[in-house]
Amino acid sequence: MAVGACYPRGFSAGIACCGMKRSGKADLALFASDRPASAAGVFTTNRVVAAPVTVSRAQIQAGSARAIVTNSGSANACTGDAGRRDAWTMVHAAADALAVEPSHVLVASTGVIGVPLPIDDVVTGIRAAAAGMAGTHGRQAANAIRTTDAFPKLAHTQVEIGRTTVRIGGVAKGAGMIRPDMATTLAHVTMDADVPHATLRRVLRQAVAGSFNAISVDGCTSTNDCVFMLANGASGAVVESGRRVRLLAGAVAELMLDLAKQVVRDGEGTTRVCTYTVTGAISAPEARAAARGVAENVLVKCALHGGDPNWGRILAALGAAGVHVDPDRVAVAVGGVPIVFGGAGVLGSDHDARAALDGAEVEVAISLGLGAGSATVIASDLSPDYVEFNSARTS
Amino acid sequence: MAVGACYPRGFSAGIACCGMKRSGKADLALFASDRPASAAGVFTTNRVVAAPVTVSRAQIQAGSARAIVTNSGSANACTGDAGRRDAWTMVHAAADALAVEPSHVLVASTGVIGVPLPIDDVVTGIRAAAAGMAGTHGRQAANAIRTTDAFPKLAHTQVEIGRTTVRIGGVAKGAGMIRPDMATTLAHVTMDADVPHATLRRVLRQAVAGSFNAISVDGCTSTNDCVFMLANGASGAVVESGRRVRLLAGAVAELMLDLAKQVVRDGEGTTRVCTYTVTGAISAPEARAAARGVAENVLVKCALHGGDPNWGRILAALGAAGVHVDPDRVAVAVGGVPIVFGGAGVLGSDHDARAALDGAEVEVAISLGLGAGSATVIASDLSPDYVEFNSARTS
Repeated sequence: MAVGACYPRGFSAGIACCGMKRSGKADLALFASDRPASAAGVFTTNRVVAAPVTVSRAQIQAGSARAIVTNSGSANACTGDAGRRDAWTMVHAAADALAVEPSHVLVASTGVIGVPLPIDDVVTGIRAAAAGMAGTHGRQAANAIRTTDAFPKLAHTQVEIGRTTVRIGGVAKGAGMIRPDMATTLAHVTMDADVPHATLRRVLRQAVAGSFNAISVDGCTSTNDCVFMLANGASGAVVESGRRVRLLAGAVAELMLDLAKQVVRDGEGTTRVCTYTVTGAISAPEARAAARGVAENVLVKCALHGGDPNWGRILAALGAAGVHVDPDRVAVAVGGVPIVFGGAGVLGSDHDARAALDGAEVEVAISLGLGAGSATVIASDLSPDYVEFNSARTS
Repeated sequence: MAVGACYPRGFSAGIACCGMKRSGKADLALFASDRPASAAGVFTTNRVVAAPVTVSRAQIQAGSARAIVTNSGSANACTGDAGRRDAWTMVHAAADALAVEPSHVLVASTGVIGVPLPIDDVVTGIRAAAAGMAGTHGRQAANAIRTTDAFPKLAHTQVEIGRTTVRIGGVAKGAGMIRPDMATTLAHVTMDADVPHATLRRVLRQAVAGSFNAISVDGCTSTNDCVFMLANGASGAVVESGRRVRLLAGAVAELMLDLAKQVVRDGEGTTRVCTYTVTGAISAPEARAAARGVAENVLVKCALHGGDPNWGRILAALGAAGVHVDPDRVAVAVGGVPIVFGGAGVLGSDHDARAALDGAEVEVAISLGLGAGSATVIASDLSPDYVEFNSARTS
């Protein structure tokens, strides 16, 4: 969802306050399409999943949807049978209020684990949100799904397909890959192209691989993560195969990377956003594992926080990543400054390397010298603030 | 190695200052047996390994050894061919000084990665250490292998085998599973029983599984980790099979758990030592993976630091551990206080749970309710001090 002119045609959003946020701010957002839309979703890989994840996984099988109902303030996770009933109640309330089929409604929740939803207030909120739907409510909706986020996360773009302008919008929330107290990462992307749901699924999976699956704040996955994508065809542009799919996929991937980077930038305690690029791995999966192993290594994250080009930690993290590594072939550069070559430190690089690490955005390039596999991971540093924030008593 | 009367017969130790520690304190320790000893070793699983690990892995194949030469202050890791030559030079210098076969000398290093050893000073130190060997130098040797350790780590015990008292001693270093700046975990265990090396290997592997492989400070493995075990038979007790092996193995396991716990207690920034016990997993490996997944989860460690019984984080960590979990069967207790039953929070447990977490030692018991697999992991919390310590510039 995005603001103003870029808002995809045929989509609208509404918000409500149900009392789940102590601040009293909006905590419910309803997203709707004025016609059935192709739908695709990606869900947390965690084996402990919240009730709305169970419900939406079932709902999205059919490949089409009209609406998404999302609340913040309570994750509706670890809430047993009552929680599953509540998630279905949200679906039916949204279907009633919007006059759509219940099978066309997706549901997502984010917030404290283990706390039952105030379901009567939520139902009232859904009706209120449905009564105030508008195509310009993207920013309000992005605010309504925030929990510990310092700022709302929105993005929009457009792409010419044939002679038609396709609009794409997205909202996301997240400040830490997980905060079970008020979890977690959600994103909803809408577009007004006409895309068969099998194609949409492919586009979503590719875009997620390069965005939400390529970021890390604390290496944790949550019970509630989900990314939904709806394409309603309101622009008239049909995207089924070939170049049109590539065009759309490129625009979607860029938009989702933008949203994902916003999540890292807003990571709890984040002071630097670091992009780790691994090349020369024996395969792409090994490159991903290597990049993730380094990006999520606690000691590397601490060094990054301190602006210290501590390449010993990077090599030790590579060695523990479960991938093929020949130390004598490893090269590492930070911000373009070579610090390791042939597995040993580059003499005299320290001063320039420290300068390269002295900013809000940092690049670490690692070459394994073994093959053609490459991957990129974007991660935050680890600061004392993260630990203090997540150690604070929560009630 | 241990002090006084418990020192295993036939073993001695010597120390020297080679100038690798800025403090000027002893940074080299030599351990020797007055006769050939059965030898077993366990090494880091990291694929980037220091030169001494490469050398000792080759040396220990034969199954017997007379001496261990260990330095602190430099890890001799990522030092290329020159580093491998230096490690062999240490082996030959120790063999010369002690008049033993070079093939009977093991070598270990710990300290900064990527810095060449001052090998001439090290050789001089080896000769000085060999000139001052004594059976009562266990504590000095434990001090000589310290890096960031706040205290030296020693343990000793004895066990009656037949009518003979077998003495077992051990030293270890480590304050964090890894600190590449001055890495890492080393442990040497000596005993005066006569144990065939195949049996000794088994005893070592079992003891490591329950001690050094069951602890975590920051989830990182290093380039230099190694644990050596020597058994020289000086007591006359022969331990080959059956009950005698079980007796010895029990004593060794207990001693190594003692050393391993000392490492966690001394973990950088540690304020609480937490024992996580998982039962009811479908297998022992799954229980280990579950216990490790929870114990190493950054958010669980933060909650533990804050004394917060945040069971949502524990369940989310279980779900991400890659093991079979049915949330509806999970039960969790902290310090004996049930906080989760049937996958949901236990009402009214918060006050007692907080009290149970308000100490230097904490117990978290997790039951998965699926099978008979169980495992225990001992881990530190994560404090702002850890991050500050590891973010500080190092040069």
